Amino acid sequence: MSASSETHRKIILDLDTGIDDTLALSYVLASPDAELIGITGTYGNVVVEQGVTNDLNLLAMYGREDIPVFKGIDHPSTADSFSVPPDSAIFHGANGTGNVEIPAHSDAKPRDQGSVDFIIDSVRRYPKGELVVVPTGALTTIAAALEQAPDIIDKITIVMMGGSLTQPGNVGPFAEANINQDPEAANKIFATKADITMIGLDVTTQVLMSQEDTDSLRRTGTEAGRFLADMTDYYIRISEQEEGVFLGGCNLHDPLAAAVAIDPTLVTTFATNLMVETEGPQRGRTIGDPKRLLDETKNTKVALSVDAERFTKQFVDRLRTLVTTQRNEQ
Amino acid sequence: MSASSETHRKIILDLDTGIDDTLALSYVLASPDAELIGITGTYGNVVVEQGVTNDLNLLAMYGREDIPVFKGIDHPSTADSFSVPPDSAIFHGANGTGNVEIPAHSDAKPRDQGSVDFIIDSVRRYPKGELVVVPTGALTTIAAALEQAPDIIDKITIVMMGGSLTQPGNVGPFAEANINQDPEAANKIFATKADITMIGLDVTTQVLMSQEDTDSLRRTGTEAGRFLADMTDYYIRISEQEEGVFLGGCNLHDPLAAAVAIDPTLVTTFATNLMVETEGPQRGRTIGDPKRLLDETKNTKVALSVDAERFTKQFVDRLRTLVTTQRNEQ
Repeated sequence: MSASSETHRKIILDLDTGIDDTLALSYVLASPDAELIGITGTYGNVVVEQGVTNDLNLLAMYGREDIPVFKGIDHPSTADSFSVPPDSAIFHGANGTGNVEIPAHSDAKPRDQGSVDFIIDSVRRYPKGELVVVPTGALTTIAAALEQAPDIIDKITIVMMGGSLTQPGNVGPFAEANINQDPEAANKIFATKADITMIGLDVTTQVLMSQEDTDSLRRTGTEAGRFLADMTDYYIRISEQEEGVFLGGCNLHDPLAAAVAIDPTLVTTFATNLMVETEGPQRGRTIGDPKRLLDETKNTKVALSVDAERFTKQFVDRLRTLVTTQRNEQ
Repeated sequence: MSASSETHRKIILDLDTGIDDTLALSYVLASPDAELIGITGTYGNVVVEQGVTNDLNLLAMYGREDIPVFKGIDHPSTADSFSVPPDSAIFHGANGTGNVEIPAHSDAKPRDQGSVDFIIDSVRRYPKGELVVVPTGALTTIAAALEQAPDIIDKITIVMMGGSLTQPGNVGPFAEANINQDPEAANKIFATKADITMIGLDVTTQVLMSQEDTDSLRRTGTEAGRFLADMTDYYIRISEQEEGVFLGGCNLHDPLAAAVAIDPTLVTTFATNLMVETEGPQRGRTIGDPKRLLDETKNTKVALSVDAERFTKQFVDRLRTLVTTQRNEQ
């Protein structure tokens, strides 16, 4: 594992762990230029309890139980409860990791402090730009943090996986799944002045992990390598099956957001002010806010193109190094 | 009027004339770096007959009856007829020029040749890149030309006013008015490999003509200056009234497309492959085509930002010079 240094970007991952969340977590741990200072658990692909259990077991697998895990809000801001949508259960398996068991078990528990407070404290602690918060699931926790501590709005840097501006949604023609979990929360975040980079379907559907890639992880001969390969093969199979078209792999939604948080040059962005529709058939749609079109300040950078080749190669290379190092340390 | 030269861009305007079509026509005539080789009449703001009558009278007003006018297809590709939508009649007045009379009357008639054939012949005649076709209304005629002569697809350059990718539509939440006239025709054009620049609501709603600008035209003391000022004042008033918010002016939709045809550096664009939805509530929506997202070739450049200040100043300056020259020549 890499040691931390002054030049690292500090990262908080807000995960609903999830296959691609697992890959994003692995990528951040594998990145010498990033320091994961905490994981906050949200809901979406799984319920918070399952996601946090997965996070703890994954950290145990990587020998990184020094990293704290926090529980976030477990249901949408406009509902009393949450249960996993059938599509998410299909895509991520009942346990979130494609029905493949994480080859480690942690006895650790999430911290007593909640995600909202951890995020607020962390943003306040570090100089602007040093810490990036990376939500990869429902945005309920992030919205609550900005609402509870408006002083962090000018200081937080968010690189989120979610939304779709120039492509159709993936839960119907308008909405992307993460935004769709809590459109009101997402809309609140976009309406602030917070510095947001949106890694949506515009770009995440352009980056693919192939069976050749998973084979290269499996060939490391490590438990972690085999686990990541088996889990991702499930994701590739289900993507092929459910989307009715074989793209040559599965989309690396959450890993791309994590990678851009560490290295923004992977994407080119379009600065604008977004809103999320909350009514009618377009509920969950991310679209430019006409009322703020002429504002000189644009708070959201929407990624529209991506250096897919550079990212994918770096992603697989780093994961392979991570799981190989793992073996050497065992 | 400017004389033509080898360095000029040749322009065909495909107009549904229309207040902002009138301004676009005026701008092209006023531009020393453009040569208007013909006007083809489509439907939308007005029916084809009215639009073509307006074109002929406007050319008479500017002393440019040397420019040929052609009639295009007068109804959508999926319908038997067309009548002006109530909203268009409100925005452009019953006569298309804000119920202000064009201060010239032409006895000329449109040519016997139809728009489709004129466009095909012209694209075949000039080297690629020398001619730009600028549709500012329904895309029926352009689609018919590409269908009738597929050989021009690789050679045509289209800079169109229409669509909306990163902002809501202006006829409901999804569709922009020009696309909405004939979504099937628009979809056919986007699906070809034709070189298209889309000047949509993303940018046209960022460029405004103010009452200060119309006053400066009126102060030239010419008939043409007064006509443009009175007509545009109608458009400003109706924009304020119908859109319920005073933006400080009216949007220069069609003029921006004409200006970008002459000088592409006015906008920054995003290269992608678009489709137009033709079914259900999203009929008329312009959105990225997921099936062609991974294609290396992207045939459409969507304008996402615009140098509004440079364009607006140049636009008003050129129009003022045009109508002033007019007076000197009378």
